[in-house]
Amino acid sequence: MALTKEQLKEIESNLVELAAKEVGPLLKEKAGTQFDAFDDKANQVDLVTAVDKKIEAIIKESLGKLYPDFKFVGEESYQQGTTEIGKDPTFIVDPIDGTTNFIHGYPYSCTSIGLVENGVPVVGVVYNPHLNMMYHASKDNGARLNGEPIKVPERTLTLQQSIIALEAGSERSSGSSGDDNFDIKQATYNNLLSDKGGYIHGSRSCGSAAMNMCLVATGKLDAYWEGGCWAWDVCAGWCIVTECGGIVVGGNPNAWEVPVDERCYLAVRGGCTNPDQKSFVENFWSHVAGKLKYHW
Amino acid sequence: MALTKEQLKEIESNLVELAAKEVGPLLKEKAGTQFDAFDDKANQVDLVTAVDKKIEAIIKESLGKLYPDFKFVGEESYQQGTTEIGKDPTFIVDPIDGTTNFIHGYPYSCTSIGLVENGVPVVGVVYNPHLNMMYHASKDNGARLNGEPIKVPERTLTLQQSIIALEAGSERSSGSSGDDNFDIKQATYNNLLSDKGGYIHGSRSCGSAAMNMCLVATGKLDAYWEGGCWAWDVCAGWCIVTECGGIVVGGNPNAWEVPVDERCYLAVRGGCTNPDQKSFVENFWSHVAGKLKYHW
Repeated sequence: MALTKEQLKEIESNLVELAAKEVGPLLKEKAGTQFDAFDDKANQVDLVTAVDKKIEAIIKESLGKLYPDFKFVGEESYQQGTTEIGKDPTFIVDPIDGTTNFIHGYPYSCTSIGLVENGVPVVGVVYNPHLNMMYHASKDNGARLNGEPIKVPERTLTLQQSIIALEAGSERSSGSSGDDNFDIKQATYNNLLSDKGGYIHGSRSCGSAAMNMCLVATGKLDAYWEGGCWAWDVCAGWCIVTECGGIVVGGNPNAWEVPVDERCYLAVRGGCTNPDQKSFVENFWSHVAGKLKYHW
Repeated sequence: MALTKEQLKEIESNLVELAAKEVGPLLKEKAGTQFDAFDDKANQVDLVTAVDKKIEAIIKESLGKLYPDFKFVGEESYQQGTTEIGKDPTFIVDPIDGTTNFIHGYPYSCTSIGLVENGVPVVGVVYNPHLNMMYHASKDNGARLNGEPIKVPERTLTLQQSIIALEAGSERSSGSSGDDNFDIKQATYNNLLSDKGGYIHGSRSCGSAAMNMCLVATGKLDAYWEGGCWAWDVCAGWCIVTECGGIVVGGNPNAWEVPVDERCYLAVRGGCTNPDQKSFVENFWSHVAGKLKYHW
């Protein structure tokens, strides 16, 4: 039996309180203090600190008390191949999204807490304490920024007149045989930006997937294309995007419906005065320079 | 006779007041409202609005009354080939830096007011009213954010462990003979990001040169490399960077000393615990994929 709209709203409120009171102050206090104390994960630009682990432990403990029957997937405790996102209500958590920013003190790090049910993101809370931005939403309850309903400006949506978030990410194997995601991404950026290609208004990069999703949700960015990130990077933002009238599809062409752990995504804002976002997506996909493939 | 430290401080105070009272409210109010009312300049991604022109007129009139003997160069009134930046005190003004952001409502647009004397940036004020960030500095008087002295965190500075601002900009002629700035820039980004190259911590793009300079000044970014922008994009920020212990050199290799209208720059933060920034600059330049050339 699916969670009701009222239950989702209550979960949203509890997650907002958890993020604001138990997590935000720590994230803010420790930003910029871990430059001599970070570790590598997958490679030397995929970073983690003790603060990521501590925040995940705080969230896991709190959610375990509040919702003992719900499953939990967190970036730092995730075990490749052993954790599946199934039909049951599952919290999907990134304790610090934008860890590199956090280490450097660049003010785009945040905590991202999402809930999926039947594979659909139904609650999302993204909190950036540095800029005091609390984005929160739940299915059919709308999306809010610091408690105020988000109003997406209404205007036409075209690829040429768009600003799109594009990130280099941490997977940067260049010229490798069979693992050419980085080269495909860079070629796609060129296709989008060049006067021989999409010639879009511009690209932006803040270094946080969750923040990019929220910037798309609010219509400050028109779209966000990504390959290589994980369910915890996008789950909460996905709910916020859809509650603002936006859509999330796959990063590879023709992937109109994708699971939350697809690892390649295209998020597109709402508020568009064209009939729908479909032609934007198709136009965008026509510039993708190859098939992105990510391992699990 | 050069302006004294006290005179520069008074100019700085007057520019802060002008930016805060006469310009900021208008910039904030009009952000996101000009999507159906912008014009092209050099090409279809080089944009201007009536608000850019209005703000420049306000600033020019105010400065003309306060400092009738100083020269004035503004982005919107600039006439190619007729305006020179010489030895006399000259205000160099970008009424809206980040016009594309301003049009889309992305919160990184700002007003940038600099003063050069003998070709050196000696006063700089950069005001982003959306994020309520007023950066201001004058030569030998230090730099401040909203009135508070800026403290740059002290740590080592290495290319690999750096975050660098890289922008696509509005000059995007790809594959053209003799005008391959865009291709050189994109190739340089690849060199910096790839695991076969600099493998830096990351790149960021906020779409505003003046904001990037301020982010480098405060140490939130380690460096900002740019080709194609103009004196009004960097003049104010340059003063703020140097007052924070940072340096500004040329974007092309071996250009250790460049004029404010060089059009290719590399700004590097202060607060580095290495002896100096020289080795960082040399390492960075080794990744530049060709000689950037800009026409006047």
